[in-house]
Amino acid sequence: MVRVGVIGASGYTGGELLRLLLLHEEAEVTIATSRQYAEEYVYRIHSNLRGYTDLQFSDWNLDEVTSKCDLVFTSLPHGASMKVIPSLVNTGLKIVDLSADYRLKDSADYLKYYGYEHPNPDLLKKFVFGIPELRKDEIRGARLVSCPGCMAVTSILALAPLVKNKLIDTSHIVVDAKIGSSGAGVKPTIATHHSERFSVVRPYKPVSHRHTAEIKQELGKLAGSKIPIYMSPHAVNMVRGILCTCHTFPSKPLTVPEIWKAYRGFYPEEPFIRFVRDKRGLYGYPDPKVVVGSNFCDIGFELEDDASRLVVMSATDNLMKGASGTAVQNMNLMMGFNERMGLEAPALHPA
Amino acid sequence: MVRVGVIGASGYTGGELLRLLLLHEEAEVTIATSRQYAEEYVYRIHSNLRGYTDLQFSDWNLDEVTSKCDLVFTSLPHGASMKVIPSLVNTGLKIVDLSADYRLKDSADYLKYYGYEHPNPDLLKKFVFGIPELRKDEIRGARLVSCPGCMAVTSILALAPLVKNKLIDTSHIVVDAKIGSSGAGVKPTIATHHSERFSVVRPYKPVSHRHTAEIKQELGKLAGSKIPIYMSPHAVNMVRGILCTCHTFPSKPLTVPEIWKAYRGFYPEEPFIRFVRDKRGLYGYPDPKVVVGSNFCDIGFELEDDASRLVVMSATDNLMKGASGTAVQNMNLMMGFNERMGLEAPALHPA
Amino acid sequence: MVRVGVIGASGYTGGELLRLLLLHEEAEVTIATSRQYAEEYVYRIHSNLRGYTDLQFSDWNLDEVTSKCDLVFTSLPHGASMKVIPSLVNTGLKIVDLSADYRLKDSADYLKYYGYEHPNPDLLKKFVFGIPELRKDEIRGARLVSCPGCMAVTSILALAPLVKNKLIDTSHIVVDAKIGSSGAGVKPTIATHHSERFSVVRPYKPVSHRHTAEIKQELGKLAGSKIPIYMSPHAVNMVRGILCTCHTFPSKPLTVPEIWKAYRGFYPEEPFIRFVRDKRGLYGYPDPKVVVGSNFCDIGFELEDDASRLVVMSATDNLMKGASGTAVQNMNLMMGFNERMGLEAPALHPA
Amino acid sequence: MVRVGVIGASGYTGGELLRLLLLHEEAEVTIATSRQYAEEYVYRIHSNLRGYTDLQFSDWNLDEVTSKCDLVFTSLPHGASMKVIPSLVNTGLKIVDLSADYRLKDSADYLKYYGYEHPNPDLLKKFVFGIPELRKDEIRGARLVSCPGCMAVTSILALAPLVKNKLIDTSHIVVDAKIGSSGAGVKPTIATHHSERFSVVRPYKPVSHRHTAEIKQELGKLAGSKIPIYMSPHAVNMVRGILCTCHTFPSKPLTVPEIWKAYRGFYPEEPFIRFVRDKRGLYGYPDPKVVVGSNFCDIGFELEDDASRLVVMSATDNLMKGASGTAVQNMNLMMGFNERMGLEAPALHPA
Repeated sequence: MVRVGVIGASGYTGGELLRLLLLHEEAEVTIATSRQYAEEYVYRIHSNLRGYTDLQFSDWNLDEVTSKCDLVFTSLPHGASMKVIPSLVNTGLKIVDLSADYRLKDSADYLKYYGYEHPNPDLLKKFVFGIPELRKDEIRGARLVSCPGCMAVTSILALAPLVKNKLIDTSHIVVDAKIGSSGAGVKPTIATHHSERFSVVRPYKPVSHRHTAEIKQELGKLAGSKIPIYMSPHAVNMVRGILCTCHTFPSKPLTVPEIWKAYRGFYPEEPFIRFVRDKRGLYGYPDPKVVVGSNFCDIGFELEDDASRLVVMSATDNLMKGASGTAVQNMNLMMGFNERMGLEAPALHPA
Repeated sequence: MVRVGVIGASGYTGGELLRLLLLHEEAEVTIATSRQYAEEYVYRIHSNLRGYTDLQFSDWNLDEVTSKCDLVFTSLPHGASMKVIPSLVNTGLKIVDLSADYRLKDSADYLKYYGYEHPNPDLLKKFVFGIPELRKDEIRGARLVSCPGCMAVTSILALAPLVKNKLIDTSHIVVDAKIGSSGAGVKPTIATHHSERFSVVRPYKPVSHRHTAEIKQELGKLAGSKIPIYMSPHAVNMVRGILCTCHTFPSKPLTVPEIWKAYRGFYPEEPFIRFVRDKRGLYGYPDPKVVVGSNFCDIGFELEDDASRLVVMSATDNLMKGASGTAVQNMNLMMGFNERMGLEAPALHPA
Repeated sequence: MVRVGVIGASGYTGGELLRLLLLHEEAEVTIATSRQYAEEYVYRIHSNLRGYTDLQFSDWNLDEVTSKCDLVFTSLPHGASMKVIPSLVNTGLKIVDLSADYRLKDSADYLKYYGYEHPNPDLLKKFVFGIPELRKDEIRGARLVSCPGCMAVTSILALAPLVKNKLIDTSHIVVDAKIGSSGAGVKPTIATHHSERFSVVRPYKPVSHRHTAEIKQELGKLAGSKIPIYMSPHAVNMVRGILCTCHTFPSKPLTVPEIWKAYRGFYPEEPFIRFVRDKRGLYGYPDPKVVVGSNFCDIGFELEDDASRLVVMSATDNLMKGASGTAVQNMNLMMGFNERMGLEAPALHPA
Repeated sequence: MVRVGVIGASGYTGGELLRLLLLHEEAEVTIATSRQYAEEYVYRIHSNLRGYTDLQFSDWNLDEVTSKCDLVFTSLPHGASMKVIPSLVNTGLKIVDLSADYRLKDSADYLKYYGYEHPNPDLLKKFVFGIPELRKDEIRGARLVSCPGCMAVTSILALAPLVKNKLIDTSHIVVDAKIGSSGAGVKPTIATHHSERFSVVRPYKPVSHRHTAEIKQELGKLAGSKIPIYMSPHAVNMVRGILCTCHTFPSKPLTVPEIWKAYRGFYPEEPFIRFVRDKRGLYGYPDPKVVVGSNFCDIGFELEDDASRLVVMSATDNLMKGASGTAVQNMNLMMGFNERMGLEAPALHPA
């Protein structure tokens, strides 16, 4: 049993953590902080949790967090995590951070992609970049884990086996991402106003999106050299879900069995990777619709007849595998629990 | 040719007025005011109008409005119209007001439904309540017209023939309304945030909605006495459109032909009323889907086998017949133009 | 541990049963029949279940069902259940039927509402009408249970306390229902074609809907006499969920505390009834959005200022509380399991 | 004035043609054929046209078409057009074909992409490939015009200026397309069933989509050599609209002004091309949401900081610029009418 706190619990990833943790057999939620909603009942903000908890939000208090928790999830906005994490680190607590603040290991990237000097560059290397499918053993022994961005993890899981096995031309990797509105967080803006957001296919940051930095960092490690990643995200008309369509160009003649081999070899027995490549049935390729609510990353691919292009598709729920699901998976590993614990639910279908 | 100004042109009804007026053969838009966006190009805010106009928003200036316009549409938020209308009235301009500020004729209703004392109660009676299907002659001669609320006009058009002909029990009139998100206006809130507004069926103000006051006022006149109206609106997952399902109880034995007769007699040749009651085809009853973008109010009905309940359904586009379309229709009547001018477009289908 | 079969497992309620039963601690799914998909893997049709089971659909075979199962769910189309149920009854199996075929206790109602003579009228009374909140003890001892229609259970749970306590005028009960597309089942038609079904508010069967028969049957029992029910369903733009807006007229002066008392008294400790009536927060009334995926029926109400109308709103997931969730709840009671088993998940939010 | 017939008028492109033509100042619709709906009123199938026409569908009859029409639109399914077109060609009628049957000029492509030998390969070259922005003069003098596929025209208009000016590496052109459900036509299937199609991001034909053939044909001509095109379409949750995200790699150092120059030079004064590249406002890039219902192709672009990738985005309404709008534009040119006639409407916003 682990006593956990959720720091920054009123947003969407915070709410998703609470949903998962309140039903987790080995976790007890002792604190959920929110400055804005301090003393309000959690179920007033996360209405789906009505009947599940009488917990009230509390204001942030380091002593209280330290005494009541063994492990904390920090699901604060980017830039806010780095203000509380150094003091949390000093208390010896286990930390799973969901923000971008400790993902990048080269502090220069923060200046380039986020526009500021990172205030604790020494801490960056102490956080394990928490994609369990890439470094499970490291996470098992870690006290400090930083969870990947939603489009980053979805892209990385699709591309890692290809890059690792040097199957594709690493100078022309295109990731065309499609994401639901929950990826924009809980704060209303004109861009997320239902009348403006409904039925759009809205390109945003078609070049230089921040998640690119993480993808380059992780795939560059697997490639053994710096590589460019060309990602363009699009807002589409759904609430949850991401599809990454990765357009790649084989670096040598490739066949379908070789591609299968690369994927199966890279993910020999991952509980949350499913391969979807099916001539029959309606969902023959990955589709966020059938992963929403689950912690899966579904991966599929198609090769041009002349093998000149390899299209890899990956689908996740941005709040699950793309955020809180991976966070709980990391906790499970850090605590020695079954990796699947609390994450067993399949998607609803249809929904 | 009439020179028109749109006062409060950056919201959804303002944008819809501009869309209609920029293509209207007899209107020239000379001014579009917006405090927030003064000097910004109109097409930056109303992106659908890119390529249609180089007009820029301007700040509100009474002299400029008076000198450049023959007629103004005031599409300001409720409460803001009444601040500019008295001075506009004094300039002799023709005015079509889209706010609620001059709809109710009994100033006590403003206290009851809107929570404030009306500052110019004398002006209330000078504005014609602008439902052309109910008082076309009055509008033709009017200088000041106040347009009805979107759910009000949709309900009133459905119920007026029944009330006028004393066919229903006026103490049990239930209007269950369903409306798209554009009805909430352009200002983002958590209630209109895509993630929260998508796939809802959200009751709001299930009792005492403000539009009830207008419906009671207008139907009460037709009934010859005060009558209660029981309206409950629901937010549903679409952008435009209203369906009012009116549940009524016949006050005497009724047959389908008698109901037809009441409707056809009341609306003998209205260009924007369509009757929809069709055993074949997918859209056998009114559905907002096939009126969106048009100025129609589609009306249909169904009678219980034992004639104990009469269900009347009416569908409009809340920004067209429910607001700006009716406003332009009123302008056409006030100016002696063809009532249909600029309002001829059918709905897109499918869309 | 109970060995269960799902007869008619390829549709939406069948898929939902499988989703619930595959993760149910005390159930083992031994058979899932489908004539159309015999020998196909279940996960090809219910793509969300990929990775959860290697079960294949099988064709219907009475001997096989009898030998492999202790309890069967029949989730066949209306009219098809009655063809297999009599033989299943004879085998002594426990049966939970999700069709309409054994819901109505007066066989004349089948002629009136479904257009055919019921072939086994004697069996009708042997099936318990399975709303656990109304007759839990009866279900506990039952071998044969028939589950209610989705709009029926949602309406009945909202209205039962009022009718039982004689708080409302039973001659003017209006139920205005809004339902998602999954309620229409898995078979594609032009009415469910995405281009035609998207963004509609489509009235269908505004009078005499078949579920009316069940509501009248159940509420009539509580009222002690036959009462009319005026229900009108509407298709709205979502996949799962029902909202029933019940417009009722108090039969005597009523206050909010009296209404609370009726509801709390009627449902003293029901695990799947939640009351939602909250001045703060976005979901202050029931909304299907925050029950989807869960087995809750959320109930709330609002009273006119002059107490002349009482609006009761109830929300369910039509595939859960409205079908398969209630079916599993019934199984739990019949088998002596914890009533909540396998039904603990809250809704996702946002989704 | 031109007398027009719509051959195959009951589908979505047929309905859209009727919507445009019934309000076109210089066209009179004399025939609308549909085998399935012969003698049915057009407004029963195209419910948005209720009140606009009393036309009834008629069965196909060559003599009748020849005597009543000057020009016909053939909006039949692929493969069906080629059965009627040869006889229509012989009558001397002007023909605008909306199917794929006469788009490809090399008959071998039909075998490769459509799987059959083309029965009238000689006719292929007699049809002008009807993208007015590419060959206006040819269309003006043409009697036979074949309209492009929806994703083809959207891609070609985005890429033509780059290919023509040799600005990009033609061996790595990726088109990632997103399309609404109306692109799948009017026939219901499980893939278009609302419950299955809602909230998807569904890749289909990620390699070798048929529209690729047209894009290769047209861009190849501009390039002066055969070039590969890597297109992958995705079904997203909207009814109308296409966004093509074209990921390209500059073949030489490029700057934003050079790109502008290529586009403005290629489209010096096209009425239906709008450039959208705006730092302010919500719709700073093309988005189908603000072209739906209009005949525009909106085009915008973004260049990587190091100019290593150029992303071009183009948005159309698949039933307008992607089909029936272009068809009417072609008719206007063929008949010597104003190119804009009947196509002036902007998009609704919001919608």
